[in-house]
Amino acid sequence: MTVYNFSAGPAVLPKPVMEQIQKELPSLQGSGMSILEISHRTKRFEDILDTTKQDLKELLQIPDNYEVLFCQGGGTGQFAAVPLNLANHHRKIALLDSGHWASGAADEANRLGYTVDIVGNTKANKYQSLPYPDQKLSGDQYDYLYATLNNTIEGTTYHRDILPEHNDITLVGDMSSNFMAERYNVNDFGLIFAGAQKNLAPAGLTIVIVRKDLIHPAAHTPKMLNYEPYVKKDSMFNTPPVFPIYVAGLVTKWLKDLGGVDEMEKINRKKAAVLYDYLDESKMFKNHVAKAERSLTNITFSTGSDDLDAQFVEFATQNGLMSVKGHRSVGGLRASLYNAMPIEGAKALVDCLHQFEQTH
Amino acid sequence: MTVYNFSAGPAVLPKPVMEQIQKELPSLQGSGMSILEISHRTKRFEDILDTTKQDLKELLQIPDNYEVLFCQGGGTGQFAAVPLNLANHHRKIALLDSGHWASGAADEANRLGYTVDIVGNTKANKYQSLPYPDQKLSGDQYDYLYATLNNTIEGTTYHRDILPEHNDITLVGDMSSNFMAERYNVNDFGLIFAGAQKNLAPAGLTIVIVRKDLIHPAAHTPKMLNYEPYVKKDSMFNTPPVFPIYVAGLVTKWLKDLGGVDEMEKINRKKAAVLYDYLDESKMFKNHVAKAERSLTNITFSTGSDDLDAQFVEFATQNGLMSVKGHRSVGGLRASLYNAMPIEGAKALVDCLHQFEQTH
Repeated sequence: MTVYNFSAGPAVLPKPVMEQIQKELPSLQGSGMSILEISHRTKRFEDILDTTKQDLKELLQIPDNYEVLFCQGGGTGQFAAVPLNLANHHRKIALLDSGHWASGAADEANRLGYTVDIVGNTKANKYQSLPYPDQKLSGDQYDYLYATLNNTIEGTTYHRDILPEHNDITLVGDMSSNFMAERYNVNDFGLIFAGAQKNLAPAGLTIVIVRKDLIHPAAHTPKMLNYEPYVKKDSMFNTPPVFPIYVAGLVTKWLKDLGGVDEMEKINRKKAAVLYDYLDESKMFKNHVAKAERSLTNITFSTGSDDLDAQFVEFATQNGLMSVKGHRSVGGLRASLYNAMPIEGAKALVDCLHQFEQTH
Repeated sequence: MTVYNFSAGPAVLPKPVMEQIQKELPSLQGSGMSILEISHRTKRFEDILDTTKQDLKELLQIPDNYEVLFCQGGGTGQFAAVPLNLANHHRKIALLDSGHWASGAADEANRLGYTVDIVGNTKANKYQSLPYPDQKLSGDQYDYLYATLNNTIEGTTYHRDILPEHNDITLVGDMSSNFMAERYNVNDFGLIFAGAQKNLAPAGLTIVIVRKDLIHPAAHTPKMLNYEPYVKKDSMFNTPPVFPIYVAGLVTKWLKDLGGVDEMEKINRKKAAVLYDYLDESKMFKNHVAKAERSLTNITFSTGSDDLDAQFVEFATQNGLMSVKGHRSVGGLRASLYNAMPIEGAKALVDCLHQFEQTH
């Protein structure tokens, strides 16, 4: 039985990447040493890090006035690092509450003593649509406007053409769950961050893309959360997460060979359409997000009955379709269709949904 | 040619562990999913984390009044986390300056606004011996006494029988480079931390062992550096470094099968003796550390000539003995003999040293 893993993250890696990791695990590039064992101070690893960074710049069309940092600590680490590094003028942040992770970012900034103004929220409709600022925002008032670009749990996305207005304010985007899955213009942002464990590498690596003029010495900020030492030492002031960086290098190469982010987005749109088209026709399973705001990578749906949803999870698991249960905070069902998920996975899921619908 | 990797870290993993990783990479325990891809919220991974924690408790004889936390961020992360969590009464730390990493810990605590008193240092003899407090220390004065137990760069170790006196003060130990390599009594410490990339797992995981009464809500501390959420959520309030935790589980199992930490220490003493015995007899290569303070895991030596040292590095590399160059801050030569280095590696190095000595 072919197993498809619809987990929201850590998530599937491309099959050729998995094969290459396995093949060269005992001896990296004929060195006689494993990637799990080599020193980060070797020329071999420095080349891997440099190439991965260059490939990210190329794939995401990152302009020269941005830095690319390889960090640890995931989104939770950046919920602290972003205000600690960027909110140094007003100590005041405008934030769009689009659900679970946006709210987590607000909590962490609050804990650290920053003022967080929720300038838009869609709590009233259970975050099934995206919030937008209820006022014109300015950098004279706030250090930045914070948005969770893709809401993994709620299934909504600020795609590039429906970003919140940011003419007079720095926009910060959490791109953890749709990084390299669809095109964004990096110029729209002062800072983008992304945990690697959805579209880039196994858990343990976080990418930060930050405009150079926003990097300042962040006094009293722990070094691990302070962007300046990463810039000064090319993300190597201490031992970086060597293995995830190596895998990120293989995944970026795979994506380049496949045609880059624009080609990936086309594939992702087709893949998501397989599932959304079914859901829009189904009498049993529904998705409640407006079409323009639908996520390509995390598709939420439900029968409306907790019991029936649970039965479907069981049925899907028996058919090798894993982790289709919705996040514990919202319930229901969810399928994550990240870059490495083949279209056959989406089709297998639709077949399974169809079969379940006909027999229940 | 057999390649031996004497890197100070990331470092060698046990061969059977490497083989198992490679074998089950595409399908963990027959699940059809890779350890690189499974969700951390699966029962399968929760079992791995629980078992690894239990094995660490057993191997290190960790008493029940201690917590074991799985963190990210390495030693540098803990240089901040330890004062942020533990130095909340006096905001004042006593620290033994035994070299590079102790000094790094002092700098980070200073940056974060804590008072750091260097109560002993051996800078005058280039850290070739261990410092001890020049006064009786008390918890009425300091939140804790901080010591780097094994000095990776300088080749010295506070072994269990030569720890600094700590009757009236909490002792904190950085055990990054001799974790599970020799026996310590956990009861001697309020807190121990260790980066995994020497004796436990690939880079990206940090183990913290902390006495329960020392854990308090650390207000205004970033969540990633705050022990309390790790305790409350069993190190899973966010995505943990899944793969290094999995490898740690394989390594602890390997170490248990081998006979545990006491047996490992016996092997490490034999292994280190192969090299120290040679160095004590050699007319060309010298180690300058007093016998009682010598590290089992990081053995420093030199010809006394930078040029000759560099020639030996070249000669060793040609013979498949990698990364024997000393740390850039002290120069000279260094061989790291971690748990996974077989005694044949130490013997091969001695053969190579001998051959070089006879021909130069």
